[in-house]
This record gives sequence, structure tokens and C-alpha cells, in this order.
Amino acid sequence: MNFRAIALPIGRLLILISLLMILPAVADAFAENPDWQVFLVSAVVLGTTGILMNMAFQGVSPPGNFREAILFVNAAWFAFSFAGAVPLYFSGLGIDFTDAFFETASGLTTTGSTVLTGLDTLPPGILLWRALLQWIGGIGVIALGIWLLPGLRVGGSQLFALESSEKTNKPYGHIGPFVFRLLVLYGGLSLSCMMLYQLCGMTFFEAVVHAMTTVSTGGFSTSDQSFGQFPGVSVYWVATFFMLTSSVPFLYLIRGIERKSFKLDVQIAFLFIIVGAASLGVFYFERYIVHDTPFHMFTLAVFNVVSVITTTGYAANDYLQFGPAVIAIFFMLTFFGGCSGSTSGGFKMFRIAILIGYIQCLFRRMVRPHRIVEPRYQGHAVSNSVLEGVLVFAVLYAGTFAGFSVVYMMLGLDLETALSASITALANVGPGVGDTIGPSGTFQSLPDVAKWFLAIEMILGRLEILAGILLLTPDFWLE
Amino acid sequence: MNFRAIALPIGRLLILISLLMILPAVADAFAENPDWQVFLVSAVVLGTTGILMNMAFQGVSPPGNFREAILFVNAAWFAFSFAGAVPLYFSGLGIDFTDAFFETASGLTTTGSTVLTGLDTLPPGILLWRALLQWIGGIGVIALGIWLLPGLRVGGSQLFALESSEKTNKPYGHIGPFVFRLLVLYGGLSLSCMMLYQLCGMTFFEAVVHAMTTVSTGGFSTSDQSFGQFPGVSVYWVATFFMLTSSVPFLYLIRGIERKSFKLDVQIAFLFIIVGAASLGVFYFERYIVHDTPFHMFTLAVFNVVSVITTTGYAANDYLQFGPAVIAIFFMLTFFGGCSGSTSGGFKMFRIAILIGYIQCLFRRMVRPHRIVEPRYQGHAVSNSVLEGVLVFAVLYAGTFAGFSVVYMMLGLDLETALSASITALANVGPGVGDTIGPSGTFQSLPDVAKWFLAIEMILGRLEILAGILLLTPDFWLE
Repeated sequence: MNFRAIALPIGRLLILISLLMILPAVADAFAENPDWQVFLVSAVVLGTTGILMNMAFQGVSPPGNFREAILFVNAAWFAFSFAGAVPLYFSGLGIDFTDAFFETASGLTTTGSTVLTGLDTLPPGILLWRALLQWIGGIGVIALGIWLLPGLRVGGSQLFALESSEKTNKPYGHIGPFVFRLLVLYGGLSLSCMMLYQLCGMTFFEAVVHAMTTVSTGGFSTSDQSFGQFPGVSVYWVATFFMLTSSVPFLYLIRGIERKSFKLDVQIAFLFIIVGAASLGVFYFERYIVHDTPFHMFTLAVFNVVSVITTTGYAANDYLQFGPAVIAIFFMLTFFGGCSGSTSGGFKMFRIAILIGYIQCLFRRMVRPHRIVEPRYQGHAVSNSVLEGVLVFAVLYAGTFAGFSVVYMMLGLDLETALSASITALANVGPGVGDTIGPSGTFQSLPDVAKWFLAIEMILGRLEILAGILLLTPDFWLE
Repeated sequence: MNFRAIALPIGRLLILISLLMILPAVADAFAENPDWQVFLVSAVVLGTTGILMNMAFQGVSPPGNFREAILFVNAAWFAFSFAGAVPLYFSGLGIDFTDAFFETASGLTTTGSTVLTGLDTLPPGILLWRALLQWIGGIGVIALGIWLLPGLRVGGSQLFALESSEKTNKPYGHIGPFVFRLLVLYGGLSLSCMMLYQLCGMTFFEAVVHAMTTVSTGGFSTSDQSFGQFPGVSVYWVATFFMLTSSVPFLYLIRGIERKSFKLDVQIAFLFIIVGAASLGVFYFERYIVHDTPFHMFTLAVFNVVSVITTTGYAANDYLQFGPAVIAIFFMLTFFGGCSGSTSGGFKMFRIAILIGYIQCLFRRMVRPHRIVEPRYQGHAVSNSVLEGVLVFAVLYAGTFAGFSVVYMMLGLDLETALSASITALANVGPGVGDTIGPSGTFQSLPDVAKWFLAIEMILGRLEILAGILLLTPDFWLE
């Protein structure tokens, strides 16, 4: 194992982080909040470290083989979380390093669980920094989903490897122009989201922060009330549109825009069907509890459902007040997640589609053993390696969820809180169910050890489990 | 589909049920309880129906093909549950048919969830009938696990098909002598259990009832306090021994007794490791709450753990009082279950062993793609069809658990009760966690619809899901 290979890119990441820290420093300086010094000093220290690492390891070849790539993504996510936590720790928040690390990991993985209260009165630097962490995390997540995980054949995602899906003409054989398109799309979505938010009545600062946490399906907000702070319905539909757009495969968007035509995609169809069904369900049960105009209630139902299934995690109201049936819907939605190659997390729609198709196929085979039926996805036969990947991912997803839940219960959390904390971290959603970590609560009161486990589980979720737990196997380390 | 093919064996089952009903009739007659007439009339009516069906369908060939076999096991389990509910419904209990059906299905599937309270004051006929349902259900479960499910290749259980596991000399090629051995073993275990229970201080009646519900890993008792009614520790160790023995593959026991040597079996090793670890865990956390001698506490910890993992469901005390860590242990234990080909239910040890081996193997393959590693079980390579069966079973198990949980929440149950009701029914354990359905509660207060769903889920669990939900697919019914 060549540890030097990962030092150079980690050094470059540190430089990137330190450059990003200049933005909150500027914001706090304008607001005349002393935290601008914290951000500036952190930027200088981390930037210098990065530059020194860059100089020390200049010429070392970048991570090349499988194990170095795995080591790099793990190290990158942890290093970024540690470095990003530095200004939060030294800022006027007065939180300990556990909380700072939890908040940063939650941001970078675009989870959106928070340990902070009183967001409405926080200085702009910290609010902007949290949003920036999610925004930059979102790019990392897309990159993981488009290149790294398919390349590593994790959890069936090889289905979306660029080569195999573009057999005829490889439009993105050269990676440069494609990265450019991706960044333009991500930036364009963020900018349009921001402008529409402003049109709907947000201040410039609110619009910037929420645009960054919407397109990254992150979910950090500028208020303890999350989206509940905004009156009217237009802002909810704008957010719903951009959360859904960001949960769609970015490759699909880029190709659709280039070809000016959007074909039906299985993942997107599944996403819309589940959103529609769950929204109607929430609306149905909500009617008994809330007295409001049907359109306003439906708006909030769709917004909350989309917020959870896209793994964003905003809340328009405390939907857990609407009875056990609504709690059931939101608890289950936490597992699903959006589409592959997007900023959203969770189990992902393509895996659900493949599993359903496979089980149907299996039933047919059992009933009629002599007829040949094979599972299909989007009109193509699903290869055994993809199928196996999906099945294994399902088992690991359930196992990781269960294993971490047990840890949280051992640490004293009640069953409901433990289960929902575990899945909201693993699927990178944000809020859980129950009084403590529900949409109107925070993770503040959890024991410190639980916060570290949750932060690790968030990163594990981002690495689609396999790319993370591989580090814990002896085989990975033995030559 | 030849529906007539299943009518003959269903008719014979009805005759068997009516014969069994004579026992509680006799018990109630001795106790001078008027319910003896209910049992006798039910026996006559059901017996006559069975004889008429036998005569009407005489000469019809028995279920031969795959679909008829599947239809038969489903029909048999439901028919037996309906017929067995008849005397409970008409008895002095005064319960409605939903409760009677729930109690009977819970008995026959050896689940052990109950809707009855005041067991201590019930007439002997009803207590004996509940025990008989479990005892006869246990034989059905073993038969399913040894012949039917492997034959239908359900969930990887083909691994235990008699032919494949006995390639060298087929000692049970002729089924007759083997069935005899099985019945002798089951009867012998029941008898020894009963006699030891009497030695430990149970009355004759208590010993009979508890022996029948112990070897079937059913869990019905003669008291609301379950095993909490018995003083001393010896009775707990006797019960622990017989619950564990009944959760071991019966084929393993028969072969071991014949050869007078017991080889290490992977399933049994896993079972003992999990029991040991969980017992130590419960003991560890219990110490903070309970003030008792260490040996007594350890005895109860082992007993409760074994009771849940073997899917028996007795309770020695309300272990849910010992804090969230202990609740976590018991909630998780509910999923596991014992070994295949035993009376216990749940996920089964061999599937856990195969899954762990496979995931290890997968990690190795990822790290070293050029080295050939294949999953092994008990020293033999695991075939793809077994592996696929296990993976699919895992997905269906999680999906069924989740799907039914959502139904229970839609019906108004809180998250904890819904989740634990769902898994305790699917794994055929008995008690759940939480105040309502925990070891000191009953299923009485649940809505009627929930009780029907739970009864169906118990039967689905017994049919290892696949053999049950196949009936819901259009392909099964179409020619």
C-alpha cells in the first residue's frame, strides 16, 4: 500500500477547503462578526499545510490501483470533515470538537442533521460555511456516483459506468469537457434556484444558502424552523422542483439538455410514482388533524415527502404530529433515496427497480421452470454481476442499518430514535422521527459516542457502504 | 390447476384435527367444565366434514406438481387455523372469531402470541387445546423444513435436501422409516421434557402443556406470568435445554443418535455463539437494574435469550424493564431464529452463516480480483442457486417485515409496536417489545384488521415467505 499516493490529492483538497473558507470570512467581516478571524486563520493554517503537502509529495503518482482509490475516498471524506470542523470549533459557537465534526460530516455528506439550535441568530459566516460544505459535498457525491462507484463496481452501480452505457459513441471519452459540463449544470441549477428563491421573497443571503443546500439535497437552513420560516406556497414548489431535479441522474440531465429531448427513465418514473403515492397518503391522513386549505396542505405534503425521499431533509412543518400512519410513511421514505449519479443518497431507485424485476422473474421461474425469463432494467437484460451487486448492497444496507441501530440503543437511545437515527444517517437524509431527532428537534442531546458513530455512518452511506467497510477487512491491508 | 387434488389431504387433516379435539374434551369433562361439549361437537362436525370430503374425493391423485404443492401447504395452514378456531370461538371464552383465529394461527405456526388474559383461571380444555395446536404445528414445521421447502428450492433451503446431503448412502431413501424415526424423536423429546418438568416441581398438567409448547418452540403457557410462575432455577435450565435442542436440525439429531457421534455443525455453532454473546450482554446490562444473585440473574438472562432466539417466546420476567440496551438485544434477537429443519422460525442460522461467508468472499474478490475465492458452508462450496436463494430470502424477509410494519402503523400502532409486532409474527417468536405486546402484554388490544394481518404474516413466516406470496402473483394462477 502506497500511502504517499494519497497524500498529494489530500493536500490539494486542503488548499480547496482553505480557499472556500475565505467566503465565510468575508461574510462575517461584512457583518462585523469577530468569527471572520477564525475563518481566516483556519484558512491560512490549512492552506499552508496543503501547500506543504503538495510540495513534499510533488511527483508522487496519484492513487492508481483499486486499494489506493478506496483508501483515498475514505481519507478524503474524513480529512475534509476534520479540516472543515476546525473553524466551527474555534468560532463563537462554543461547541466541542465532537459537535463540530458531526456538523461538518453531516454537511459534507449532504445529510443535513444538525446539533445547532438558534440558527436564526447565528452569524452569517457559520451559516454560509455549513451551506458551502453541503454544496461542495454535493459535487463530491456526484463525482463518486458517476466515476468512482461504478468503476469500483460497488452495489450494482457498474450499470451506470460511462463506457457501458454509451457503447455506440463515447461522448465523454475525454473527461475534461464532461467535468466542465457537469460543473456548469451544477452551477446553473444553483444560480437559477437562488434567483427563483429571491423572487419568492427570500433575502439574498437566505437565497444563496438555501440554493446551495437545495441542489446538493443537503437540507441545512438559516432557521430552526427550516422552510417553515417562509410564508406562501411558491417557495415550496420552487424547492420541490430543484430537490427533485437534483435527485435525478446528472448524466441524464446533461444528455437531455444536449439532445433537447428527455426519454423516460426507469429511476425517474419510480421516483415520481413513490412521491405521488406518499404525498397522497400524507395528505389523506393530514386532513384529519390539520385545518387548512387543501392546496396549502397538499403543497406542504409534497414538499415534505420530496424533502425526505430526495434525502434533503428540510421541514415545512412538524409532520410527525399527524399520527402514526404519517410517521410510518416518513420513516419508510427515509430508506428509499433518489436516483444514482445524483446528489441524493439512500438505497436508490434503480436498485428498487432491479430488485422488483428480479423477484417477479424469480416467481415466474418457480412457477414455470422451463421457460426462460431474465430480469430486465430499462429494456436491457440485467447482468449477473449487477444483480449480485444489488442483492449484496440490499443485505449490507439492512445489516449496517441494524448494526448501528444496536450501537445507538446500547448507548441509551430508545428504539424509535435509534432506528431512525441510524437510517437517516446511512441514507444521508437529515431528520429522523421521534421527539429528539425529528424535524423539529436536533441531534444536540445525543451522547458524544453516538455522534461519532453517526458521522461515520453518514460517510459510510456516502461510500455506498462497500467502499467504506472494506477498510475494516484484514484482506484490504495484507499484501 | 387441479383444486380437487388438495381436497383429499385437507379432508384428512380435518379428521386429524377432530381426533385431537377429543383430548381437550376429555380434560374439560374431568374438570367438569361445560366446554367439553363444545370440543366434542366441534370434533364431530369437523370430523364428519373430513370424512365426507375423503369419500367425495376418494381416488383423486394427491398434489403432484409444484403449483398444487404450494396451494396445498397454504390451504392446509389456513384450513387448520380455521378449524382449530371453531372450539375456541364457541367456548366459554367469549371471544370473537378474529381473536379465535389469531390464537389458533399463532398456535399452529408455533408463534405463541396470545390475545387471552387470565390464563391461570382458564379451564384445562382450552389450555390443552392451545398446547396441542403448537405441538402438532411443530411437526408440520419440521416436515415443511425437511421435505417441502428444500424440494421447492425456497430461500436456499435446497442445501438441506435429503438427496444432496446424503450422496454416499441414502439412509432415508424410503420415507416411511424416516418419518417413524422423526416422530419417535419428537415424542421422546416431549416425554423427557414433560418428566423433567414434573421433577422440577410442575404439576402433571403444567408439565404436559409446557412440554408440548417447549419442543415445538411455541411458547404458550398456563399462566399470564409465563415461566415467571415457577420458582427455582432448575426448571429454567430444563426449558433452555429443550428449547435449544428443538432449534437444532432434527436430521442432525437423528443421525447423531444413530451414529452415536455429533459432529460440529455450522448452524449449531452460530446459534451457541449468538446465545452466549446475547446472554452475557443482557446479564451485563441487567446488573445495573436488578438486585439478585448473579447465578439467578444469569439463569434468567440465558432463558430469555434462548426463548426469543429459538422463537419460543416464554418470558421469565419482563426483560424490557432493563433499559434500551436490553430492549435492543431482544428486538434484534427476534430476527434471527434457530436452525433449518427444526421447529424454530426466523431468518435461520445457515442463512446468516452463508451471508457472512459470501460477503467476506466478496471483499476478498474486490481487493484481489485475480484470485479465485468462493463462498463455503460447512466445508463445501455454496452453489449459486443456494446463494441466490439466501440473498433473495434476505430481501424478501426485510421487505415483508417492512411492508407489514407499514400496514400496522397505518392501522394506528406506534412505530415500536408496529415494527416488533411485524417481526415477532414473521419470525414466529411470540412476544414483541413495548408495553402493549411485550412479554408482559398481549395482542388483545390491537385492532381486528391488524390481528388478521398478523395471523397471515405468521403463516407467511412459516412458509418462508416465498411459498406464501407466490399465491398473490398472477403467473401462479395463469395456465
